[in-house]
Amino acid sequence: MLIKNSEILSVGTEILLGEIVNTDAAFIAGRLALLGVSHYYQAAVGDNCGRLTEHIRAALERCDLLVLTGGLGPTYDDITKETAAAVMGRKLVPDEKAMSTLRGYFSGRGRAMSPANEKQAYFPEGAEIFYNDHGTAPGCAILDEERGKMIVMLPGPPRELTPMWLDKVEPYLRRFTGSMLVSMNIGVCGMGESDVETVLHDIMVAASDPTVAPYCGEGDVRIRVTARCNTPEEGREKCRGMTEQIYETDVGPFIYGVDESLEEAAVRLMREKGLHISAAESCTGGLLTKRLTDVSGSSAVLEYSAVTYTERAKTAFLGVPPELFAEKTVYSPECAEAMARGIMAASGADIGVGITGIAGPDGGTEEVPVGTVFVAAVRGGRVIQRALRLRGTRQHIRYLSTNHALMMVIEAARG
Amino acid sequence: MLIKNSEILSVGTEILLGEIVNTDAAFIAGRLALLGVSHYYQAAVGDNCGRLTEHIRAALERCDLLVLTGGLGPTYDDITKETAAAVMGRKLVPDEKAMSTLRGYFSGRGRAMSPANEKQAYFPEGAEIFYNDHGTAPGCAILDEERGKMIVMLPGPPRELTPMWLDKVEPYLRRFTGSMLVSMNIGVCGMGESDVETVLHDIMVAASDPTVAPYCGEGDVRIRVTARCNTPEEGREKCRGMTEQIYETDVGPFIYGVDESLEEAAVRLMREKGLHISAAESCTGGLLTKRLTDVSGSSAVLEYSAVTYTERAKTAFLGVPPELFAEKTVYSPECAEAMARGIMAASGADIGVGITGIAGPDGGTEEVPVGTVFVAAVRGGRVIQRALRLRGTRQHIRYLSTNHALMMVIEAARG
Repeated sequence: MLIKNSEILSVGTEILLGEIVNTDAAFIAGRLALLGVSHYYQAAVGDNCGRLTEHIRAALERCDLLVLTGGLGPTYDDITKETAAAVMGRKLVPDEKAMSTLRGYFSGRGRAMSPANEKQAYFPEGAEIFYNDHGTAPGCAILDEERGKMIVMLPGPPRELTPMWLDKVEPYLRRFTGSMLVSMNIGVCGMGESDVETVLHDIMVAASDPTVAPYCGEGDVRIRVTARCNTPEEGREKCRGMTEQIYETDVGPFIYGVDESLEEAAVRLMREKGLHISAAESCTGGLLTKRLTDVSGSSAVLEYSAVTYTERAKTAFLGVPPELFAEKTVYSPECAEAMARGIMAASGADIGVGITGIAGPDGGTEEVPVGTVFVAAVRGGRVIQRALRLRGTRQHIRYLSTNHALMMVIEAARG
Repeated sequence: MLIKNSEILSVGTEILLGEIVNTDAAFIAGRLALLGVSHYYQAAVGDNCGRLTEHIRAALERCDLLVLTGGLGPTYDDITKETAAAVMGRKLVPDEKAMSTLRGYFSGRGRAMSPANEKQAYFPEGAEIFYNDHGTAPGCAILDEERGKMIVMLPGPPRELTPMWLDKVEPYLRRFTGSMLVSMNIGVCGMGESDVETVLHDIMVAASDPTVAPYCGEGDVRIRVTARCNTPEEGREKCRGMTEQIYETDVGPFIYGVDESLEEAAVRLMREKGLHISAAESCTGGLLTKRLTDVSGSSAVLEYSAVTYTERAKTAFLGVPPELFAEKTVYSPECAEAMARGIMAASGADIGVGITGIAGPDGGTEEVPVGTVFVAAVRGGRVIQRALRLRGTRQHIRYLSTNHALMMVIEAARG
């Protein structure tokens, strides 16, 4: 059987009530695209046997692979497995490994296993079972080779579904799919999208496999390299070849990383160079430091940061002279630089960052509107400055400000 | 016409490729539930005229109201309006107000308006138009009174769709809906879910309109009060009555706020009492301060916070004695308290918070596993302490830690 096209059906009344956002569908859709499987339709229904049966029947008329998420729990309204088995004409049978794993799960937590839980260890006869390493509900696949139809069923919680998909479902599905797609994302900092396009124009036009496409990130530029292949390894090899070619262009010096976030790249780079960073944040209120410390192992590069929200705190903890506020105001490149130098002096870090501005929604004026943010990154005698005029909500302005700061940190770290 | 049931259809190939998460559907589903409109089905299709036509036809057989999101942009693959109009047998006609608003939008940004943009000012004849205050694509509604069918079309970007729905679509739809639901969420801190249930048992059993239901938040407890009503005002009035009744129970002293987040409640409470806060964060890396400063106006309560990631920084900037690390280790209630006292002494704040622990994924040991976090909140002579054993990813452990810290801040602020 060759899987050509697919649909996703999410099962759960909580989706129809708007209580949860269906991130599973987006995740699976993205992975199906990489598997080279077409995907024309997504739907969500409640825990209702009639509507579920009707939709499964209709979907199997349209597609080869139907992925069901949710409704594999122990309660009476979890009916996905029962309903799918009925449509496929299979009865449910217990699986010994699933049953003993389930028993172990409960006894390990010192809890009694109720009879209702047992149904999680029953599966449609002949199903491929995906054991769950992060919860109690295993997933499974029913294959009807004759009709050329497959139903995959997965637990709804993303922290169970995501690893199950990556570790178990994808390797299984790959037996039934043809060529797949593998992507690499090259992060570029310090060069605009149109400049990247100009430099890469000839490569982009000539490239058909892998393809090369730049797109605008939130404040940075990303180049997506996508290869068609038969195995992930082959795909990565092809992408790596193209990535190396791009490194050799004028874009090369501006590449901060491949398949990593700005904060991951910044921390990695500073670790590689043995550099330490400290930040003095005002309007971003700790978000830059939060993002740096999102990266595991960031303690090797960050010892200390300060959120100095008021002028008094900027003077007391960073030594920004009060005259500076009077002469230049707190919203000035001079203040951002003084903050960066102040935190460097206090912490002894190699790179100091200062951020000051107005995230809004209040506090803006005609001359200094909401979204005015000054960022300075200092390393030794070198100062990198940006004066930003950002638009959007308070959260968005704060986030973009830290994106710029991270790019400046990368620039400073590169030396 | 009375709208009884509804479906949502999201249009956009980017959804099927998994490039965006469909938050619009969750938002609209939640609002439809509050409008008292049933909702049994959600779907997503690509920018494909055939499949879109087929789905709209089928959906209108099943429901009274079909909400379409996305595909209202200026490009050739934005076909939602054209397709829906064709199914409903309407032709597209220009709207003068939309056209001049569109022209104003472009001239205000000093950009030329392309002919393609003009199509955003065309609507199905007789449609109700929802002008867009946050983007270029207006939404609209087509009503077929005879068949008792309505199609509502909205732009996809959430920052355009959300205000349009709240300000324009909902008031319009209310002409066609019966009774609606209005909810209030009461936040409780310092009392467990089962204790809340015990205290509120009689009220919950007796309550039918509004209903009362407690549920577990991420580290806190929320009580949802939901009233059936004909206008939002009437609903809020009924909810307020029940909320006041709940305030008078033993839960009352533990209520931190109504319809506000933990950080909003903490900032509001400190503002009301004229209190200042400073935090010394280790494993949360600035997240607590970031969340406090997410709240507009937080500069009135926060002047200064420090992220002291290493032992050296805890000693240098908070005065934590090095002996304490040797005797109690950095992962101890004593260290959390010393950090809180250190930041209070440095900043002169009324409330000091200290957080230390292991967010993982590395760094855990058998005695001190990943997820061990100590939080201390100090106000004057009073110390509130929590020793947490959290599970989950690094991000989740950090987030839950700050939830606990915020609840302790509220407790301290209440005095």
